[in-house]
Amino acid sequence: MEWVVKVGGSLFPDDAIEFCKALVGKNAIVICGGGDLANKLREYDADIKFSDTAAHKTAILCMDILGMLVADKIDGAEAVYSVEDAKKVMVDGRLPILLPSRLFEYLDPLEHSWDVTSDSISVYIAWLLKSKILIVTNVDGIYDVDPSIDGAKLLKSINAKKLLNFSETSVDVNLPELLLEYNLDCYVVNGKFPKRAISLIEGKNSKCTFIRGENKPEVF
Amino acid sequence: MEWVVKVGGSLFPDDAIEFCKALVGKNAIVICGGGDLANKLREYDADIKFSDTAAHKTAILCMDILGMLVADKIDGAEAVYSVEDAKKVMVDGRLPILLPSRLFEYLDPLEHSWDVTSDSISVYIAWLLKSKILIVTNVDGIYDVDPSIDGAKLLKSINAKKLLNFSETSVDVNLPELLLEYNLDCYVVNGKFPKRAISLIEGKNSKCTFIRGENKPEVF
Repeated sequence: MEWVVKVGGSLFPDDAIEFCKALVGKNAIVICGGGDLANKLREYDADIKFSDTAAHKTAILCMDILGMLVADKIDGAEAVYSVEDAKKVMVDGRLPILLPSRLFEYLDPLEHSWDVTSDSISVYIAWLLKSKILIVTNVDGIYDVDPSIDGAKLLKSINAKKLLNFSETSVDVNLPELLLEYNLDCYVVNGKFPKRAISLIEGKNSKCTFIRGENKPEVF
Repeated sequence: MEWVVKVGGSLFPDDAIEFCKALVGKNAIVICGGGDLANKLREYDADIKFSDTAAHKTAILCMDILGMLVADKIDGAEAVYSVEDAKKVMVDGRLPILLPSRLFEYLDPLEHSWDVTSDSISVYIAWLLKSKILIVTNVDGIYDVDPSIDGAKLLKSINAKKLLNFSETSVDVNLPELLLEYNLDCYVVNGKFPKRAISLIEGKNSKCTFIRGENKPEVF
């Protein structure tokens, strides 16, 4: 698996399904964010204050649910719990969508906190599989300021160290730290234009933000 | 486990947590409904039309999530995936909350359909464990007409066969059929008054509806 592709929950259902259809047959494994379900859990948590562990585990189950539902709508995709099954699915030219709950139950590698969300989980899996990582969201990448502000400028590339100081972006607050910890680069791309992601996967240039987590020269 | 207690998702979070606190130390195993999360999946399904199997499996994962969260807030409760673990928890005087997804993955005993929801799942588990079944909801039981209508009368008892012809009640549409199939009786009680359920569990009378699924004489 050359690429771990994390499909943001904000794209679910239609855009996530369309995006993943375009990935069938590519050298990629998909992980879905928890979307509205995880947001609902955050709402409950704001009132009730569950333990960090319960919040972490249930948020990951939301990723399983959306992953199952996306896989359900794509003929060439299959939801899997293990890397073994993901490999079998790929051999058949199909797209594996990884449901991360069981793998995380066995490995439990990350801090239990709302800061560790599906982006961070995908980085960990990319490190585990020695894959590149593509984060697919509902904006074109990371901007210098809030993208809703007039004149906000899309960053072609940014160092993860610099991103540590950004207050809010289209990626999880914990992501840059994990990229540095795991020595991984990452691409952030808009899922509403699947061709952009496909270009990147095929080694071509495309509209996106490249986050440099490794000590390597600039790509763009 | 003398009782399987199905706690309706409509009671989540506060009433479900308070209710389950009262059950600690009783001879019971809890199963939680999927609540707002399952309702959200129904909304998606209305638009997107997932397969019956995907809808069934993801709705059961919602039950896991709410079960984990309820258990998280009760010192004397523990979320478990297996009957073996439920028994261990009970030996310690604690309350097991069964997360049904894995048991249902192994057994897959029920039709995959939106009609088969958490009530039906709980009936199956009660049959499996040779337990009595208590369905805990947000109304006092089953009424002769919609309980929001003035003069609606709470039924003290009803035969499951008769309930087959009711259009909408506080229990799942599929429940009476399953009670008949599995030859099981069932009590429906309001979770906002935990003492009522405790009375029933202790063999006393209480405000509720008794659904007769077995060919036995009337209890009330």
